[in-house]
Amino acid sequence: MGKKIVIIGGVAAGPKAACRVKRLLVDADVTVIDKDSLISYGGCGIPYYVSGDVSDEKELRSTSFHMVRDEYFFEKVKGVKTLVSTKALSIDRGKKEVHSEHQETGEKAVLKYDTLLIATGSTPVILPIPGNDADGVFTISDLHKAIEIKDRIAKGKVGKAVVIGGGAIGIEMAEALTDLWGIETALVEFADQLLPRIIDWPLATILEKHLRDNKIDVFLGEGAEEIVTKDGRVVAVKTGKRTIETDLVIMAVGIRPQSGVARKAGLLVSESGAIVVNERLQTSDPDIYAAGDCVEITHLVSGKKFVAPFGSMANKEGRVVADNMAGIPTVFKGGVGSFILKAFELSIGSVGLSLEVAKAEGFDADFSLSSPSDRAHFFPGQEIFCLELIFDRRTRKILGFQGTGPLNDALSTRIDSAAVALCACATIDEFANVEMAYSPPFSSAIDPLNAAGYIADNLCADRMRQIPMEEFYRWMEDPSLHSDWLVLDVRHEQQSQPLVEQFGEEIWFPLPQDQMHERYTEIPKDKMLILFCNAGSRAFEIQVFLDYSGYRNTAVLPGGFNVIKRMGASWLSEGPQNNFSY
Amino acid sequence: MGKKIVIIGGVAAGPKAACRVKRLLVDADVTVIDKDSLISYGGCGIPYYVSGDVSDEKELRSTSFHMVRDEYFFEKVKGVKTLVSTKALSIDRGKKEVHSEHQETGEKAVLKYDTLLIATGSTPVILPIPGNDADGVFTISDLHKAIEIKDRIAKGKVGKAVVIGGGAIGIEMAEALTDLWGIETALVEFADQLLPRIIDWPLATILEKHLRDNKIDVFLGEGAEEIVTKDGRVVAVKTGKRTIETDLVIMAVGIRPQSGVARKAGLLVSESGAIVVNERLQTSDPDIYAAGDCVEITHLVSGKKFVAPFGSMANKEGRVVADNMAGIPTVFKGGVGSFILKAFELSIGSVGLSLEVAKAEGFDADFSLSSPSDRAHFFPGQEIFCLELIFDRRTRKILGFQGTGPLNDALSTRIDSAAVALCACATIDEFANVEMAYSPPFSSAIDPLNAAGYIADNLCADRMRQIPMEEFYRWMEDPSLHSDWLVLDVRHEQQSQPLVEQFGEEIWFPLPQDQMHERYTEIPKDKMLILFCNAGSRAFEIQVFLDYSGYRNTAVLPGGFNVIKRMGASWLSEGPQNNFSY
Repeated sequence: MGKKIVIIGGVAAGPKAACRVKRLLVDADVTVIDKDSLISYGGCGIPYYVSGDVSDEKELRSTSFHMVRDEYFFEKVKGVKTLVSTKALSIDRGKKEVHSEHQETGEKAVLKYDTLLIATGSTPVILPIPGNDADGVFTISDLHKAIEIKDRIAKGKVGKAVVIGGGAIGIEMAEALTDLWGIETALVEFADQLLPRIIDWPLATILEKHLRDNKIDVFLGEGAEEIVTKDGRVVAVKTGKRTIETDLVIMAVGIRPQSGVARKAGLLVSESGAIVVNERLQTSDPDIYAAGDCVEITHLVSGKKFVAPFGSMANKEGRVVADNMAGIPTVFKGGVGSFILKAFELSIGSVGLSLEVAKAEGFDADFSLSSPSDRAHFFPGQEIFCLELIFDRRTRKILGFQGTGPLNDALSTRIDSAAVALCACATIDEFANVEMAYSPPFSSAIDPLNAAGYIADNLCADRMRQIPMEEFYRWMEDPSLHSDWLVLDVRHEQQSQPLVEQFGEEIWFPLPQDQMHERYTEIPKDKMLILFCNAGSRAFEIQVFLDYSGYRNTAVLPGGFNVIKRMGASWLSEGPQNNFSY
Repeated sequence: MGKKIVIIGGVAAGPKAACRVKRLLVDADVTVIDKDSLISYGGCGIPYYVSGDVSDEKELRSTSFHMVRDEYFFEKVKGVKTLVSTKALSIDRGKKEVHSEHQETGEKAVLKYDTLLIATGSTPVILPIPGNDADGVFTISDLHKAIEIKDRIAKGKVGKAVVIGGGAIGIEMAEALTDLWGIETALVEFADQLLPRIIDWPLATILEKHLRDNKIDVFLGEGAEEIVTKDGRVVAVKTGKRTIETDLVIMAVGIRPQSGVARKAGLLVSESGAIVVNERLQTSDPDIYAAGDCVEITHLVSGKKFVAPFGSMANKEGRVVADNMAGIPTVFKGGVGSFILKAFELSIGSVGLSLEVAKAEGFDADFSLSSPSDRAHFFPGQEIFCLELIFDRRTRKILGFQGTGPLNDALSTRIDSAAVALCACATIDEFANVEMAYSPPFSSAIDPLNAAGYIADNLCADRMRQIPMEEFYRWMEDPSLHSDWLVLDVRHEQQSQPLVEQFGEEIWFPLPQDQMHERYTEIPKDKMLILFCNAGSRAFEIQVFLDYSGYRNTAVLPGGFNVIKRMGASWLSEGPQNNFSY
């Protein structure tokens, strides 16, 4: 036998590195140890297992050719030894040994290594609130928990559920509980929007409306303060504002890198608890690598370190580690945080920085918000999606991209393309000329991605000036502000009419685009004009014309009515224009 | 009024440039002239108009807010003058004048310009064969032709049709005729495969099988030699091999840039007939720009000039021209030839160079062919798609990417992402680490794009050796060659059994992967081994193990059975394993 390779952690980065290094060094002695009895599973599939979309947990740990990835599989097919239910207690770096203990028998063992990989993953954060350990409180940390939750539901023990946390896992779990089991589900999020810091407010609000439309009670800006129990079982969740009865609590408020064994061994660990690695994913000990949720990597846009707890990232990192272990110097440059999520009939995703984060990071950040068709607008079945491009005005670099859309791959197409552009440090101009494949069943002659770049270019050149959606909502919601502004609705009259009737012409002034050249002198000159159409593009054209005609106090409402009706609003009266499923 | 801008051509690049330059220079006097009466239409939508998916031709020339883009629209909404049915006869560059003639009245006019754009598009190639001008022979050149074809069909005058040309338009038209009108359709292609030079043979064969499965008679390697007529009407098409009765002929054998007026004016025109422009899309006269199908642009992979007759390209170029006309220096670097096509329930697409073209261009080109799931393999509704990555072994640069898949956006996602990577001159290593957004409803933890990069990496390192699909098919089809090789089928026994029964163990030897370590000595040592599984990945793992075990005369069949069953083959017996709709 050749080199002795030990890998602590058998979920994603660990098995990937093990199998790859075994292919590179066929005579190596590769051993994976994991404290759990179930290994190498698709953790991101857990919500779909709980929902019932995936009927058997074995499917989550099977190959595409239907072999379960268990000890037999790794031994016979991959030539990799696996020790399950085996916890790594400590690493003796001097002797190059891992000391382990069997979780059932208590048996201790010593594993010699030449090279070691720490792929210990992460643990879910547990809120330090009363009742957090009650029967019926779960985190989504491993397959056992998922099996237990599904078992409880299948036995009819769950009529009501509360999900704490409006991040990706919380939202996926809320859908799983509601959609396929009909459980009355509430979702509680401490921040005042869903997917905080990942998705900006307008698009997060579209998601929020969609969850509400699908019968999830969404409570934002409310922290869970207590889990009320009875006889040790959860019966309710108390927030600062209300008490929500429940039989089940899913706590999905984030993760923490699991770096105890690394820290104990004296390896460098960051303040946030992530193992520090170089570009080759080496820890501060050159014979020890680390990968997956337990490390921090470089964010290729902000340049900062971050923890990227994605199975996809873990697999990529695992491969890089294997190459380095086998003497093929390979670097992992970092990530851009590509993210996509299904929520009922909606897709939502992002990559890079949100506008909020980009501003906080000190960029001269601005955004283009658009609402184009996801394929040729004349092609049957086309749907609107909402896209936001975040860019730096000074350097013209792309900083991020995000969107919501119907449940198909149209959004994912643009997120992935933007991800490649972000990895390549693209500018607005490169983004605007990216050559997306065009055919009416798949896209538009001017792809939404390119169009987002065009808008950014117009904003940078101050040819276009816009009002953020937040500001527009604040104005609409407060009648005391109404005297200063005026919405100029440039759509067809039958489209503007319901809103004109609701608000009156002093607030909502109709002037169709094709009558603008003749009638623009009718527009009051003493008010700031909010230029309004369905998607924002006609509003921009009118802005250019009005600038030329001496009306310079104007702002386009980016994304227009397409965005607003998907966001919903208390100030928008019920009616056909507000009766909308994504 | 400011600058006088004249634009010859009113379909895609022309109107885009006109509207953009009018926004940049609001006081400019912008005039678009076109010899046709219908302008600014989505030409790529013609097949869907003929099929009936798009019911009215007006939809192809309407905006997303349902306004027809006619003279009124351009005047009132865009501030652009349009002169339809007006042909540009010549350009007097000294006087800066365009001389035109009205197509109906014969009235001549002179248009003064400060800056001129030539966006005259392309004309379909008409084969120089007898009968090419008969009644019932059409090219897909403009909306009038499309209206005439649909009219003929709707009147019940077309029972049979022949499409000449197996490129994108030919295939789309064949589908339109067959699928929605039930017309018996034959497709004749001179090359021995569909989409020659764009798609390599294995994937083109998948398309071919799919067209046949959808009742299109596909005749490859047959040139149309005569259009047989009776009383001036088409009645049949004669190829070198057969006579096909027909009521309608669609000739779709390519396009030629329309550069007559440019050439006559003494502007530089290439040998292929395309107008020569610089990166700012200026012709050899600095006051004259050209854009769209009539120019040649730089191919960003090969570095050569090419004509890219795509509406999407024309729009991008039109915008660049407008910027330059308005004094904003802007470059159009070139294209990578992104391409996507719907054919019944199949999507097929490519970007960059095909393997065949890359080799012809002198690259050290190689390919990775894979057949992964289009989303997590455990997610309901996942489907297999087939992907080919073309790369240069010496420089490790990505040269091209292509694929076939089910009719959703999964393929388009990867084509577009690869397009961005090609624009950024990505290497295999960058491609392998591109961060595609992962969630089970949208993709796999190891995205097919990354996996294609992994395979390329293994091929470059000679860790993987493969046999081209063409060679494998030649071997299977010729029993006289069978003694030298042996297929080693490493799948489950119930999967390999039908093929073992058909061919016998001397040709098709079953040995499941998980029994390999114990039983590999049973494998005959005197034969070249073709390693065979469903997708190619297990075959690769076995190759690594056999290399180590002293069996080095092996080759992986890339893409495996997933590709073969989609390609179909005369040597594959009918049965469940060959009974497959995409």
